[in-house]
Amino acid sequence: MKNVAVFGAGRIGRIHAGNVVALPGVRLKFVCDPVADSAAALAVQLGAQVATPDEVFADAGVDAVVIASPTDTHSALIQRAAAAGKHIFCEKPVDLSVSRAAECAAAVKAANVGCMIGFQRRFDPTFAEAQARLARGEIGVPEMLVVTSRDPGAPPAEYLKGSGGIFRDMLIHDFDIFRWILCTDLGDGGDAADTLYATGSVLVDPAIADVPDIDCSAVTIRTRKGRLAQINTSRRAAYGYDQRFEVLGSQGLLQCGNHRPTEVVQFDAASVRVDKPEHFFLQRYREAYRLELEHFFDGLQSGKPFRTSVADGVEAQKLADAAAQSLASGKVVTL
Amino acid sequence: MKNVAVFGAGRIGRIHAGNVVALPGVRLKFVCDPVADSAAALAVQLGAQVATPDEVFADAGVDAVVIASPTDTHSALIQRAAAAGKHIFCEKPVDLSVSRAAECAAAVKAANVGCMIGFQRRFDPTFAEAQARLARGEIGVPEMLVVTSRDPGAPPAEYLKGSGGIFRDMLIHDFDIFRWILCTDLGDGGDAADTLYATGSVLVDPAIADVPDIDCSAVTIRTRKGRLAQINTSRRAAYGYDQRFEVLGSQGLLQCGNHRPTEVVQFDAASVRVDKPEHFFLQRYREAYRLELEHFFDGLQSGKPFRTSVADGVEAQKLADAAAQSLASGKVVTL
Amino acid sequence: MKNVAVFGAGRIGRIHAGNVVALPGVRLKFVCDPVADSAAALAVQLGAQVATPDEVFADAGVDAVVIASPTDTHSALIQRAAAAGKHIFCEKPVDLSVSRAAECAAAVKAANVGCMIGFQRRFDPTFAEAQARLARGEIGVPEMLVVTSRDPGAPPAEYLKGSGGIFRDMLIHDFDIFRWILCTDLGDGGDAADTLYATGSVLVDPAIADVPDIDCSAVTIRTRKGRLAQINTSRRAAYGYDQRFEVLGSQGLLQCGNHRPTEVVQFDAASVRVDKPEHFFLQRYREAYRLELEHFFDGLQSGKPFRTSVADGVEAQKLADAAAQSLASGKVVTL
Amino acid sequence: MKNVAVFGAGRIGRIHAGNVVALPGVRLKFVCDPVADSAAALAVQLGAQVATPDEVFADAGVDAVVIASPTDTHSALIQRAAAAGKHIFCEKPVDLSVSRAAECAAAVKAANVGCMIGFQRRFDPTFAEAQARLARGEIGVPEMLVVTSRDPGAPPAEYLKGSGGIFRDMLIHDFDIFRWILCTDLGDGGDAADTLYATGSVLVDPAIADVPDIDCSAVTIRTRKGRLAQINTSRRAAYGYDQRFEVLGSQGLLQCGNHRPTEVVQFDAASVRVDKPEHFFLQRYREAYRLELEHFFDGLQSGKPFRTSVADGVEAQKLADAAAQSLASGKVVTL
Repeated sequence: MKNVAVFGAGRIGRIHAGNVVALPGVRLKFVCDPVADSAAALAVQLGAQVATPDEVFADAGVDAVVIASPTDTHSALIQRAAAAGKHIFCEKPVDLSVSRAAECAAAVKAANVGCMIGFQRRFDPTFAEAQARLARGEIGVPEMLVVTSRDPGAPPAEYLKGSGGIFRDMLIHDFDIFRWILCTDLGDGGDAADTLYATGSVLVDPAIADVPDIDCSAVTIRTRKGRLAQINTSRRAAYGYDQRFEVLGSQGLLQCGNHRPTEVVQFDAASVRVDKPEHFFLQRYREAYRLELEHFFDGLQSGKPFRTSVADGVEAQKLADAAAQSLASGKVVTL
Repeated sequence: MKNVAVFGAGRIGRIHAGNVVALPGVRLKFVCDPVADSAAALAVQLGAQVATPDEVFADAGVDAVVIASPTDTHSALIQRAAAAGKHIFCEKPVDLSVSRAAECAAAVKAANVGCMIGFQRRFDPTFAEAQARLARGEIGVPEMLVVTSRDPGAPPAEYLKGSGGIFRDMLIHDFDIFRWILCTDLGDGGDAADTLYATGSVLVDPAIADVPDIDCSAVTIRTRKGRLAQINTSRRAAYGYDQRFEVLGSQGLLQCGNHRPTEVVQFDAASVRVDKPEHFFLQRYREAYRLELEHFFDGLQSGKPFRTSVADGVEAQKLADAAAQSLASGKVVTL
Repeated sequence: MKNVAVFGAGRIGRIHAGNVVALPGVRLKFVCDPVADSAAALAVQLGAQVATPDEVFADAGVDAVVIASPTDTHSALIQRAAAAGKHIFCEKPVDLSVSRAAECAAAVKAANVGCMIGFQRRFDPTFAEAQARLARGEIGVPEMLVVTSRDPGAPPAEYLKGSGGIFRDMLIHDFDIFRWILCTDLGDGGDAADTLYATGSVLVDPAIADVPDIDCSAVTIRTRKGRLAQINTSRRAAYGYDQRFEVLGSQGLLQCGNHRPTEVVQFDAASVRVDKPEHFFLQRYREAYRLELEHFFDGLQSGKPFRTSVADGVEAQKLADAAAQSLASGKVVTL
Repeated sequence: MKNVAVFGAGRIGRIHAGNVVALPGVRLKFVCDPVADSAAALAVQLGAQVATPDEVFADAGVDAVVIASPTDTHSALIQRAAAAGKHIFCEKPVDLSVSRAAECAAAVKAANVGCMIGFQRRFDPTFAEAQARLARGEIGVPEMLVVTSRDPGAPPAEYLKGSGGIFRDMLIHDFDIFRWILCTDLGDGGDAADTLYATGSVLVDPAIADVPDIDCSAVTIRTRKGRLAQINTSRRAAYGYDQRFEVLGSQGLLQCGNHRPTEVVQFDAASVRVDKPEHFFLQRYREAYRLELEHFFDGLQSGKPFRTSVADGVEAQKLADAAAQSLASGKVVTL
């Protein structure tokens, strides 16, 4: 039985905590959140106790921590957990600073604890199946990737002030998809980003310009082997959460569509309608969140490497930095 | 906190038991199964105790029972549960005999306990959404229903000997869909089957002819208001579990498609492929099984009528009887 | 160069005439229609001459006739054409009376002229591709057929008075599909209808009851080999012309969907929409009409049998008669 | 009656000639091709005469010319036709040189003849419907465009030597789509490309590197209003011709899918399959080719401006030049 502490009793913390309690062989022992009411409510609901970080790290009975607290707390918690010998599941990003993220990776390595970063999209059933087929060579060698990533609506400009900008806050997932799909070593030595060009605009909410940030972007990455990736993103899609990618290979194409709540088709005099995509990430990635935690604890058990390591977190962060630099300079960046 | 006993630790019993333990405010107290190992294994896994039926019905602390034991035990368990004042969730069918099913309905009524029959298809997200839109009048008045219901493969002829025949074993669900979609009172007084014609063949497995039974069927029902339903079923669909219906209304059509495991589309020189439907009922109706138990316990709490009552169980059984009679006689049956 | 006369300058005659002139090696010589203005307008537009039937049949230079005049003129024109040694393409039905249709078949045989009946659905690219795959054994042996056939709206009750009733006027095509898909000899000796049950209602337009006729129907056919077919039809589909069938085989399923004018998908806050099906038969079967005439003249050239013979016309008519008899009697009919 | 001469009796010339003869009020008078046999065969087939360019331009009875000859003959023929007062339909591109293309535009203007460039994609039913809905404001203001444009296979490297490179040969169509969708003045003053970045690789055929050329590319364009376009192209798609675009607007998304030959869906034990896209441009754009010529002659009749003018040809060419410059320099180009 693994004992777990969850940091953060907000939206994403509650999801992870709920998934922890449903896993066989895993017990949610502690919930930590500076907002006492949130922590208490979640702990009561799931039969756990409230604790402070100090209590968590001092408790030899805690095997692993799930970090779902605000971004600016991640690196400190990772380093404390590593020092305390606890295994770590941490929401993305590791840190908005690449150097601090790299320090976390070093700390994890030194402590020899497991550390998995929550790039849940790699556990989405559709995305994971596509990657598995790619890895089995079903469409030959990957050549081009097109990623579409659109939120249903922009968050308040105020929130975006602490976000690190669209590339670190939103595209971090898409950069990870890029690495997973075009750069994974499939027996060919793998690949890596060579040049990156990012542009973007404020088309959704003028207040976002004052952050300053942008609300839609177009990123192009060319790898060392000449593979090409294009990522298009927007903070607003009137029709909901739009999460797709397609990868062209030498022998075919794998296309990942959105998930829909139901398979009803309605025909009437005006139109033929299907469901809109699942509304937002909590719906679309519900199963992915469950599967990634299962993977984490399976990995702790089996000792096999995680599908999303702290190194993946650092590398995605580097691409986000490069994109920010390209946008600021208006130039192509070489990695 | 509601305490629950589950009868049956087989495939479907394990699903219901798992769903019971995940429900807030509900506790799985007992597992009953004459196969001691099965009962013990399930009880241990879910933190419950093994008990005999006598112990369950004698325990005043048990609020409700979930009956997922073999079909021929249903009616006796319903009647004992009613007599003991326990609320009842029972898998379909109530009983292979309409008269015994009617006795169960009477017993439930007399005891004034809740009794819900497990027509889980009414809780399938796609089917339920279609019915809700129909009920809101989105396609006008319902006129025609086409139900397609195909299993991935036929069970052994041996199993079918105790099944009551294809109409009672397999189409019982489709007859319930017919009643739900074409006969529900949507402010128009509702409707009911008037004539029924059933035909069928043995095309899948010749051994089924010796049961005797058929393995594919075509049923047509005309209602008192002249609405028309056609049900086509087969024990074998090479591509998996095929569960669809469509209802034509005066102002449009609602079509319910199959669910797919993923939304991957694969294009290559040979073809463009999407996923096959979810393999069988445990996959397709996974969410429906969860939602029907949630509905059951919500109903016990709120006192609102269940979506699928014991009367629904009896009525579906009558249609199955009529179909068997039509098949045997080669004639149209008037209900 | 084949010289052709077209009988009928109405909606369907104009389509056939237009297709005739576009075929290489075929010349539209005459247009015949008792409505002089219609005949003249079509002849002028396509560079042909107006003629009377007598002139057509007397002209040794006419190789073939295309009969697209009203139903009640078909059999007489077929017999005159056969007597005159002209090859014949005739719109369905051969005749509303099976015996007169059989006389036409005999006349055609005696005269040794080619005669093809316009079951254009067999030339629809989607339906034809499905049948070809079935014939190649791609889904094994055919077992069940479900045909959906719905018009966008009912014609005036007045029109229906001369139509011969829904089975002869509308389902004649569906009966032909049944024979084509379930009964064609694919090296297995073929199959034939054994029993037929038809029911139906007036749900669309009460005036249709006074014709008397029905406006929606449900037909079930069982073949000698035990194959099952269900046909559902309605005179009204609010969303347009709905023409689909699916055939289940021992190794798979072939499903034929509707055609859409465009492949635009529109996503917005309210819905995700695709095009409605092609509006009616002139749009849906535009290509089929072209291909069937091409097939007719290719057949005249090559001497190969037509895909839809006069015998097919007679057999479909027999099924329509059986359906009318079943509806009237409320009983199952044996063929 | 308009008399027309077609230059070029190759693949595309034959298509245009066939469409000319099917148009009411238009007559194919001459076919010109230096390959005498090709010219003669086409002329005989369609009832036209073979002629030299001199004869065509000297014949006062010729109203219009359709230029479907090799690219390097376009500008000279346009200028001669303009000088002779003939209206002009010319296949893309006007000329591989922007300055020569601009001279053509000037010549056309001076001669006051009609001149339409064959960007047939604007007449594809799906693309045209999407643009019409965009123009009606159905998805609000356009913000982002993603264009996918892939050929089924790369032509021989030898052919590519005279092609002007992938941007002028293949992406010229995509640049026109970009202008049509993101830059058309919809009452908002329109928009124009501001910066362009192009990268690419040789991934399909190493011989293409020696041309020198590339065989796949990724282009990003940002407009003056900040709208973003990404174009991804490849000379090879194992599954056929892939021609899609989607445009995100402030209130929704319009997605244009590929066309399929049929609507058959095949389900079996291995997979669920739909048709591959139409194989190549002659199939996919068959209807578009017909519609664009109809539009050309309608425009000559009505005097309304063409949907694709010679100016559109020049502007697309400028974008192709900018892309070539960006690729060569590795830098972002400002237009």
